[in-house]
Amino acid sequence: MLGLDPDPAALWPDAVEAEATAFGEATIGDSAGLTAAAVERHCVDAMDAAGPYCVAVKPQLACFERLGADGWQALAAVTGAAHKRGLLVLADGKRGDVPVTARAYAQALVGETHTPFGLVRGLGADAFTASPLLGRDALEPLLEAADAAGAGCFCLVRTSNPGAAEIQDEPADAPLYERLARMVAELGEPRLGSCGLSSVGAVTGATRPDLVARLRELMPHTIFLLPGVGAQGGTVEALAPAFEPHPAAALVTASRSIVDAHRDRGGEPAEAAAAAAEELRDSAWRLVQAG
Amino acid sequence: MLGLDPDPAALWPDAVEAEATAFGEATIGDSAGLTAAAVERHCVDAMDAAGPYCVAVKPQLACFERLGADGWQALAAVTGAAHKRGLLVLADGKRGDVPVTARAYAQALVGETHTPFGLVRGLGADAFTASPLLGRDALEPLLEAADAAGAGCFCLVRTSNPGAAEIQDEPADAPLYERLARMVAELGEPRLGSCGLSSVGAVTGATRPDLVARLRELMPHTIFLLPGVGAQGGTVEALAPAFEPHPAAALVTASRSIVDAHRDRGGEPAEAAAAAAEELRDSAWRLVQAG
Repeated sequence: MLGLDPDPAALWPDAVEAEATAFGEATIGDSAGLTAAAVERHCVDAMDAAGPYCVAVKPQLACFERLGADGWQALAAVTGAAHKRGLLVLADGKRGDVPVTARAYAQALVGETHTPFGLVRGLGADAFTASPLLGRDALEPLLEAADAAGAGCFCLVRTSNPGAAEIQDEPADAPLYERLARMVAELGEPRLGSCGLSSVGAVTGATRPDLVARLRELMPHTIFLLPGVGAQGGTVEALAPAFEPHPAAALVTASRSIVDAHRDRGGEPAEAAAAAAEELRDSAWRLVQAG
Repeated sequence: MLGLDPDPAALWPDAVEAEATAFGEATIGDSAGLTAAAVERHCVDAMDAAGPYCVAVKPQLACFERLGADGWQALAAVTGAAHKRGLLVLADGKRGDVPVTARAYAQALVGETHTPFGLVRGLGADAFTASPLLGRDALEPLLEAADAAGAGCFCLVRTSNPGAAEIQDEPADAPLYERLARMVAELGEPRLGSCGLSSVGAVTGATRPDLVARLRELMPHTIFLLPGVGAQGGTVEALAPAFEPHPAAALVTASRSIVDAHRDRGGEPAEAAAAAAEELRDSAWRLVQAG
């Protein structure tokens, strides 16, 4: 399999020159567009050279994403060019998120999205990589979409980097969240701000407030990002330990319970969202003031 | 914090109508562009309503990615609109990859990329979420980029979904890779093809061939994707157990050792890449035929 990790500083010279010639001085300023075009040409040239010895190409999504929308355009073009050459495409993005979000990633990679303006097709990859850190319910939407598309999913099990050993190999003396918490606390130590909080935060779900207290012990200087309030069933009131070190030590995040508030409350979406957000802010402040 | 997870099927009606009116019938067919414009408007309206009660917005990258390049354009626009309103932006993508790729994600989110056509700026987020599954060396490039940009990084420690418990909480009786391998094998059982291999594959680094043998025991029907050959130091010859069940049971992937082959071998990039790819294919085939 041919990995396509295009580095704009190491593109094949012909690909860069072709874009420089094709576009000329006139378009100077469109760095992203020109780079994305050169990246596309580089990848197509590499496929033409090495493709006959491969069954598939593996575009590394990060390398396209760093060029923004132009990069995604190039990724789509490279995918199409691979298919034209009879090569399978494995989209390497190592995505993984809670089930509702995993469904969106599946739509992006191997599915399609229904919209008020018609169907929007995803990338059309033949396979993709996924992170299993969030567990089985987070993988299921990806696998179901892959099943429906006749695509494959490659889950990270043991990665190739040296640092993998610490998290993936060690005989565990504690649950994974405790080991991750210790690592986050250590990484944050040299990154403390004047308020005593570190720039390395932690995502700690609000759906298990009992764990939040333990995680606060393990990460006393860490800002907690707390998803799961509202639609997922968590409540702000149960999260006092998160706020203990500092009023800014916890960020409660809510999406559907604010943006979709009009469905329960009625009225205009904007008014309902404002009311829901104000209530959420007030409950967080009451918690801070009581602490 | 206001989560922005725009679902094209649940946008605020005004946002949809505005696009439908602005573009009219003439542009029918550009579903992605129209949807992305409506998504942008929906997010800006939500910010205007709920923003005064929040310090930050958290766009969910998956929800933009499913609209392709148009989605990324909308994500950039939403980021700019949040900044104009004095709101911080936390890009929620839960990215995580080997160090060289993590650097590319950092460029995409909070950094910039040097190219032959000038500097390409990333999204300009104020913070982002990251997956720590790959370990400390994979987080470092993200943290260094965050330091340089004055941005924050939120690492997943304990996620909010029910399935998190199986991976993140259980007192571990085995290294994480063994538990992940068992999960992947189970998820693959109902997904076996006629050749006896499952559509749920596993990423198993070629840099630890000793583990590959153990992982093959745990996942007898799983296709292994083996990164790490070449630039990262792994060799094909050490990977025989990966190919044991079937010639197609292992996919060796190489990026830099093929695309950058001209740097060591000299000559034209395309010829060097073809030669390197052919050699890699041949060593894999020798392994299969010897097996």
